[in-house]
Amino acid sequence: MDKSPLLPVPGFSVSGVACGIKKNGGRDMIVNAAERPATMAGCFTQNTVVAAPVTLSREIAHKGSCRAIVANAGNANACTGAQGVDDARAMAHRCADALGLPADQVAVASTGVIGQQLPMDRVIAGIDAAATALAADGWEDAADAIRTTDLVPKWHSVRAEIGGRTITVTGIGKGSGMIHPNMATMLGFVCTDAPVGPEALHTALSRAVEKSFNRITVDGDTSTNDCVLCLAGGAAGGEPIASDTPEWAQLADLLEQVCVSLAKQIVADGEGATKLVTLTVEGLETEADAVTIARQVATSSLVKTALFGCDPNWGRILAAAGQTGIGFDPEGFSLAFDDRVLVKDGTWQGALAEAAVAELMQGETYTVTLTLGTGPGSATVWTCDLSYDYVRINADYRS
Amino acid sequence: MDKSPLLPVPGFSVSGVACGIKKNGGRDMIVNAAERPATMAGCFTQNTVVAAPVTLSREIAHKGSCRAIVANAGNANACTGAQGVDDARAMAHRCADALGLPADQVAVASTGVIGQQLPMDRVIAGIDAAATALAADGWEDAADAIRTTDLVPKWHSVRAEIGGRTITVTGIGKGSGMIHPNMATMLGFVCTDAPVGPEALHTALSRAVEKSFNRITVDGDTSTNDCVLCLAGGAAGGEPIASDTPEWAQLADLLEQVCVSLAKQIVADGEGATKLVTLTVEGLETEADAVTIARQVATSSLVKTALFGCDPNWGRILAAAGQTGIGFDPEGFSLAFDDRVLVKDGTWQGALAEAAVAELMQGETYTVTLTLGTGPGSATVWTCDLSYDYVRINADYRS
Repeated sequence: MDKSPLLPVPGFSVSGVACGIKKNGGRDMIVNAAERPATMAGCFTQNTVVAAPVTLSREIAHKGSCRAIVANAGNANACTGAQGVDDARAMAHRCADALGLPADQVAVASTGVIGQQLPMDRVIAGIDAAATALAADGWEDAADAIRTTDLVPKWHSVRAEIGGRTITVTGIGKGSGMIHPNMATMLGFVCTDAPVGPEALHTALSRAVEKSFNRITVDGDTSTNDCVLCLAGGAAGGEPIASDTPEWAQLADLLEQVCVSLAKQIVADGEGATKLVTLTVEGLETEADAVTIARQVATSSLVKTALFGCDPNWGRILAAAGQTGIGFDPEGFSLAFDDRVLVKDGTWQGALAEAAVAELMQGETYTVTLTLGTGPGSATVWTCDLSYDYVRINADYRS
Repeated sequence: MDKSPLLPVPGFSVSGVACGIKKNGGRDMIVNAAERPATMAGCFTQNTVVAAPVTLSREIAHKGSCRAIVANAGNANACTGAQGVDDARAMAHRCADALGLPADQVAVASTGVIGQQLPMDRVIAGIDAAATALAADGWEDAADAIRTTDLVPKWHSVRAEIGGRTITVTGIGKGSGMIHPNMATMLGFVCTDAPVGPEALHTALSRAVEKSFNRITVDGDTSTNDCVLCLAGGAAGGEPIASDTPEWAQLADLLEQVCVSLAKQIVADGEGATKLVTLTVEGLETEADAVTIARQVATSSLVKTALFGCDPNWGRILAAAGQTGIGFDPEGFSLAFDDRVLVKDGTWQGALAEAAVAELMQGETYTVTLTLGTGPGSATVWTCDLSYDYVRINADYRS
């Protein structure tokens, strides 16, 4: 997938360094710091099993103000008991000390293997090194440092005029396996220089996450560590952007653009993925019904292996849709791949049409549109295929 | 998996022949006939998308009486519109004519590829041939004929004294992919010579199915064609077995033994499967909570690839359990593989214990016991691993 140029965000500095948590010696520690107290919003995993850093960062997001984020890759600090909680707090304290901040102004995130204690000596040294390396243009290093099984770093930047000010939004993200809605399994850090209060930022972020990270799936598993954190520093100046104003809608749209791009990058880099498929389900009574069906189809192992095999196996798509229990007329559906119609109003369009679809499915990206009625409810999700490499990566992950 | 000897059921004859629906020329048509009108019960797929034969057989099960079942493999007659309905009825009519029965006394089942019309010339010839081939000892041919991607035929027989009579129950089953609860994706035909009315048979069958086919998963996909049909011919003689008597409980137990064995055979033969894993989740408030969590763990692609990799990745098991939203204390769980304890009351038992578990996971069958509290609710499900071959089989299925 094409990525935008990476734009620094006025008022923020960031870094990514190697401290020896990852076995391969790659970058694995990031710090992201705001020059002034920033407004903070966060969206977190819905899993009952929650990693220690998620609990800590939730508290800070609840307060709505933050100066820095410290995050590591290679170890999720999840299922690590009381020691894990202590270690997450120690990460926040060390970062706060290094930056001369109060500890309750530092959010923490971790990603990687579950169930192992953090190597705190390396972690502490890494935080010090990352704090020293902070720079306005450190985003690419940071995007690199939060990777686990991700093959490529992920970022997206947008810039627009809002109410006479130039507003920049830059986000980095990671995620490749354990990717499934609520939240999509991943980390995302989004910074903007927009002036905005915590309530307005939270609603804008929640809306963006619902339409992006919560609409992707790689493997149907929801992680213990998902979080998207957003910091708004206000360096663009001017009055705070208030909820439900035109300026707020513009800002929310910028956040959504960044989150959708990061979400699609995550699916394109899904473990073992060879395809990025945009699936739209339409014609339902409500958007919620369309989301439910789209997720079921996007998660089906049988559908995903058919995508890998470039097989227009529409029976599996329809069978997956039918599993949700949401009513529709199975005899009246239509199905198209890009602009090629395979089934129209319940009628298969023949071997030539199917051959054309099979040819199109050889490509790396395409859309699938499933029409199940004439209602107004529609939803788009993004998914990838299920390949041999998914199995290889996940059978070998810890060894 | 070891299978029991195949016991003929007094009062029933059965056959399996080849009629050219399967590309490989294998057996693909079965008839199962009762000498006298038999009591019938059925359990069917919960998918919104339902194959034509399911609709027809549901009507017959509703009446509670049946003389014969005709079934084909290689083509599911699903998503085939009005033509599919006509074809299912034509199958019933032809079988009825061949056996000299009324057409509304014949149930129909189909399994195989979705979305293709049946080759009715071959189907009709196959029904005639299968009717001619009926024999008391035709069970192995029939078990062979209902296979699709199944590598091995599946059957189980039990015999016991109930109320002074010798009762035999024999079942055959198929299923390898699209296997997931409600109903497990499969066909199962169970015959018994017990005398029993439709109500008592239906409740006994439903209970058996809930504890067997509804507790297995291969790939999380629910098929459009699932059904388990049970015929009770009464040749054992004596008064009908009434609901909720000791005799009924004995009969229900025999049905459960047959269904559990068939269900486990299906998982062991899951597409690409190299392991049959028995997962028990315990300590919840209710059995329903335990079933929900057990199914989530058993379906997780990350857990299933770890099983394939012989990796005791307990973090993935706990994370999958947490996805259900059912509350438990994530710090207090215990996890054992056979009698090897890996985590006890939230404490990992160390590298030696983990190495012993990894060694044990090299075997083809083992149990996993996840204890999430001290409540009375527990449930057992059966699952398999997710291997390269699952991907290969399903990427290539139609080609």
